[in-house]
Amino acid sequence: MNIALDMMGGDFAPLEAVKGIVLFLDEVSEGISLTLIGDETIVKDLMASHGISSANITVVHASQVIEMHEHPTKAFREKQQSSISIGFNLLASGKTDAFISAGNTGAMMVGALFSIKAIEGVSRPTIGAYMPRENGTLGLLLDAGINSDCKPENLSQFATLGSLYAEHILGFENPKVGLLNIGEEEGKGNLLAQAAYPLLKENKNINFIGNIEGRDILIDKADVIVCEGFTGNVVLKMAESVYDLVKRRGLHDEHFDRFNFEIYGGVPVLGVAKPVIIGHGISHAIAFKNMILIAKKMIEKELMQKMTDIFKAQA
Amino acid sequence: MNIALDMMGGDFAPLEAVKGIVLFLDEVSEGISLTLIGDETIVKDLMASHGISSANITVVHASQVIEMHEHPTKAFREKQQSSISIGFNLLASGKTDAFISAGNTGAMMVGALFSIKAIEGVSRPTIGAYMPRENGTLGLLLDAGINSDCKPENLSQFATLGSLYAEHILGFENPKVGLLNIGEEEGKGNLLAQAAYPLLKENKNINFIGNIEGRDILIDKADVIVCEGFTGNVVLKMAESVYDLVKRRGLHDEHFDRFNFEIYGGVPVLGVAKPVIIGHGISHAIAFKNMILIAKKMIEKELMQKMTDIFKAQA
Repeated sequence: MNIALDMMGGDFAPLEAVKGIVLFLDEVSEGISLTLIGDETIVKDLMASHGISSANITVVHASQVIEMHEHPTKAFREKQQSSISIGFNLLASGKTDAFISAGNTGAMMVGALFSIKAIEGVSRPTIGAYMPRENGTLGLLLDAGINSDCKPENLSQFATLGSLYAEHILGFENPKVGLLNIGEEEGKGNLLAQAAYPLLKENKNINFIGNIEGRDILIDKADVIVCEGFTGNVVLKMAESVYDLVKRRGLHDEHFDRFNFEIYGGVPVLGVAKPVIIGHGISHAIAFKNMILIAKKMIEKELMQKMTDIFKAQA
Repeated sequence: MNIALDMMGGDFAPLEAVKGIVLFLDEVSEGISLTLIGDETIVKDLMASHGISSANITVVHASQVIEMHEHPTKAFREKQQSSISIGFNLLASGKTDAFISAGNTGAMMVGALFSIKAIEGVSRPTIGAYMPRENGTLGLLLDAGINSDCKPENLSQFATLGSLYAEHILGFENPKVGLLNIGEEEGKGNLLAQAAYPLLKENKNINFIGNIEGRDILIDKADVIVCEGFTGNVVLKMAESVYDLVKRRGLHDEHFDRFNFEIYGGVPVLGVAKPVIIGHGISHAIAFKNMILIAKKMIEKELMQKMTDIFKAQA
């Protein structure tokens, strides 16, 4: 398998990306090729100074970078020689099997949706967020912000996609799916949640446990939590701020350390036909390493094929 | 002024309500009458055993109680002799000036909306939630769950109502109003937030500072945060769960102690013509005391008249 990494994306790239590769190579030494996309001179110099000399690593030169503040669609279209554009071209043409970047999130979404395309039957690809739980596992909340207005059937599809990810990548057996809502009983909630509930109940591809509330997000009541991207994004950013608050108060706690979302690296775009992982802008070495490991697992588990099969069976 | 208190509402009523009255009378000894509604024998016995013998306290007998699990509309209609029904009758007829209960929230809302009615011009009364900030002040988030689907103009009205409450009751000068959203710039967000932004910008009764994000909820960026009640309720319950989590982890911190929402007592229904305060079901003595103090302040500051005047001027 060949995993491509945008070396220019993220606030601390390319240095932290290179360090992440060193960490990755310490863990995984064979069976995998890496394609590093970025300024060839800079990347090769950093590789040399960090002692990276694997025959399984190829550097692909990119003369442009899509900066964090740039307009996603415009930049993606105009900067054909950017690391993100080249990354999607390689993935779309089958020269690589996954693409990872901690760069401009919007441009990554544009690339995922327009270069790679959605799995047939998926009306809206989604992006999730990990939710740390006290038992040490990670729950998955989706959508985390790219689908701010949703239809009920979108939430049901998010549930299917999230369940497959939770099962095959996060390691849950028969993951429990909860609908984020403002009451426990069926019939509670806003119009969207009321309409989504019966669809989730009928969805044979998931283990639906019913509504969960705001108080249940940070515990292990559900392994997969579905909601529209507005609420999901507010929840994610609020959870991130809890970590900041705990640190600012000078508190030390193993569980709250796991609210440091940076360590998880990135989350994949679910519902597109190939593995695309979007990292946090402030990704450091460990985040880059983790993203490569997730991409590897997604390929090994043939996650995209499993998703494709399920949506094909429903059609 | 005469403030009425439902003695039978809440998980720890009437004992904690009585204890709350003792605390209140320790602080405020004159210029205020209390009407205590509940089982006369039980209430009078508890008053005697707690040494309450003020001439300014009247007990009004209520032979029924609306239980926490009962259907709000049905119970409110059928249990005419319940403490909540009697409380609203007294308030509506002008015999009391405010009504407080930690009982069935739904029945309290039904009473507020149908016995008291909305201020002219207010299309949807709302209920807020306090958000503790590190600087020791309390922000106000609204709606906290009764309006789960909103129109843009509802959010603008919530902002007006919340600003008046923040100014006159919470003590903010020219309170900053933020729209809860998933991006900082105008034009970001779901359809509701996109449409609400220009209305908030044009609202001359508020000091609108623009969008705020999930990460800004727990800091002092905005004094009043507006959103629809679905997201607001998820945020409130998630904030409550942070307190539980901090306690469970054995962490001690003055700021996180303020996430114990129980201490704030209740929040008023804003947008109805008279002061109605709905307490948390698990209210203890200090919560009951605080609710009486808030009702007193709302009456003293003529908050409802100020709200009425502003909406009349807009008509």
